Amino acid sequence: MVGSKIVLIGAGNVATHLGKAFLKKGMNIVQVYSRTESSAIELAEVLSVPYTTSLENIVCDADLYIVALKDVVLHELIPLIVKGRENAFFVHVSGSLPMNIWEGYAKNYGVLYPMQTFSKQREVDFREVSFFVEANHPTGIEALKDLAGKLSSKVYELTSEQRKYLHIAAVFACNFTNHMYALCDRLLKAQGVPFEVMLPLIDETARKVHELKPQDAQTGPAIRNDKNVIESHLNMLDDEPGLKEIYEMISNSIHRL
Amino acid sequence: MVGSKIVLIGAGNVATHLGKAFLKKGMNIVQVYSRTESSAIELAEVLSVPYTTSLENIVCDADLYIVALKDVVLHELIPLIVKGRENAFFVHVSGSLPMNIWEGYAKNYGVLYPMQTFSKQREVDFREVSFFVEANHPTGIEALKDLAGKLSSKVYELTSEQRKYLHIAAVFACNFTNHMYALCDRLLKAQGVPFEVMLPLIDETARKVHELKPQDAQTGPAIRNDKNVIESHLNMLDDEPGLKEIYEMISNSIHRL
Repeated sequence: MVGSKIVLIGAGNVATHLGKAFLKKGMNIVQVYSRTESSAIELAEVLSVPYTTSLENIVCDADLYIVALKDVVLHELIPLIVKGRENAFFVHVSGSLPMNIWEGYAKNYGVLYPMQTFSKQREVDFREVSFFVEANHPTGIEALKDLAGKLSSKVYELTSEQRKYLHIAAVFACNFTNHMYALCDRLLKAQGVPFEVMLPLIDETARKVHELKPQDAQTGPAIRNDKNVIESHLNMLDDEPGLKEIYEMISNSIHRL
Repeated sequence: MVGSKIVLIGAGNVATHLGKAFLKKGMNIVQVYSRTESSAIELAEVLSVPYTTSLENIVCDADLYIVALKDVVLHELIPLIVKGRENAFFVHVSGSLPMNIWEGYAKNYGVLYPMQTFSKQREVDFREVSFFVEANHPTGIEALKDLAGKLSSKVYELTSEQRKYLHIAAVFACNFTNHMYALCDRLLKAQGVPFEVMLPLIDETARKVHELKPQDAQTGPAIRNDKNVIESHLNMLDDEPGLKEIYEMISNSIHRL
């Protein structure tokens, strides 16, 4: 893919972080598309490339189109994105969409899924990101491994079916975990205790599973089946029905597993 | 507390890790008690101190008794632990028990709660542990701040009421978070994907809340209210009723918050 002309379709968090990382590695990004002009301009300026807000004005001579749009929009736009560019290589970056959404439109296509939690306010170190690639042709797979390999050493080949479950697994390990932090924050705030007291525990909880299996790393009242503590916690959460339900359900799940 | 004679009552994870850390700092541990002889021997050998398995044989001339027993046992044993040692300083290490369980038995008492997830297989770096102290007298508080301060710079004074909620908050941030890792592991295993691919995401999720508030760090289908993805995930979890319930409840909670 060295020297390949790349177009970024989308200007959200994933497109922005990927674009910046590719630029740093000297990749040849030639254009940015976003329906929202302000987003298109913002990313185009960062990357010093032209932008367009209209699908018809996307250049036709690029080698690789990286599509980082919301899942629901992507479905509708695929025919328009591919039209007139049928010989190029198309990839989407979604964890939850299968590769075959390209089928019947493009000839060469695949998926480049960087599994990470992207926030606008925070730089991403792609060396610390696992990439999952898939393509409809071995040369496509090799091209994507090369491309992702420029950013990270953690590049894996995965089928659409596997990636779908990987994505759910990531929702548990990242999105739901972050929500546990948020609920923790809410409980602490009510007591006037700053969230930062919790950071060493949060860090150690994450570090532990580098060495121990999560099941072996489990501690706390639920795994000890300490009914006194669990009961007293549930009573304390009487005024927080949402939290109480979650506490009870997860404690039961820990006990079951 | 320099030169104070310390007795450790209990030989579980917390007593073991605390004992080793105090020994390293040159503290004067004089005896270990555990009802279970094998545990008593094991810890006594590590610390090179005598042990006993009978409460009556605990020495009476120590200055500080650190009690690290299970909450439910502690309640029953307090009268026996204090008897004949009424002038000493007694602390328990529990996040969930109030300080006043000592009231009516001991004269000088308090709480030394190291908030961390302790596993036998893993060394603890106490510099990375938040300690929460409480005592029935200002000199007791100062003594505990000194003592905990030898191990960590993160020492906070907290009331029993605050600590009770802190403990629930820790259950969310640590125990429940680890369970999210465990459920993630289960989903990956079913696809033959190794858990280690998830570690960069887990680490970044923890790192993010050092800079952003957890609520601001939230990503994923639930916060985007991406009903297509949520629905498809729920369908995929049809054969995993436990996981499906949790997925739904936490997604709703993210959406509400």
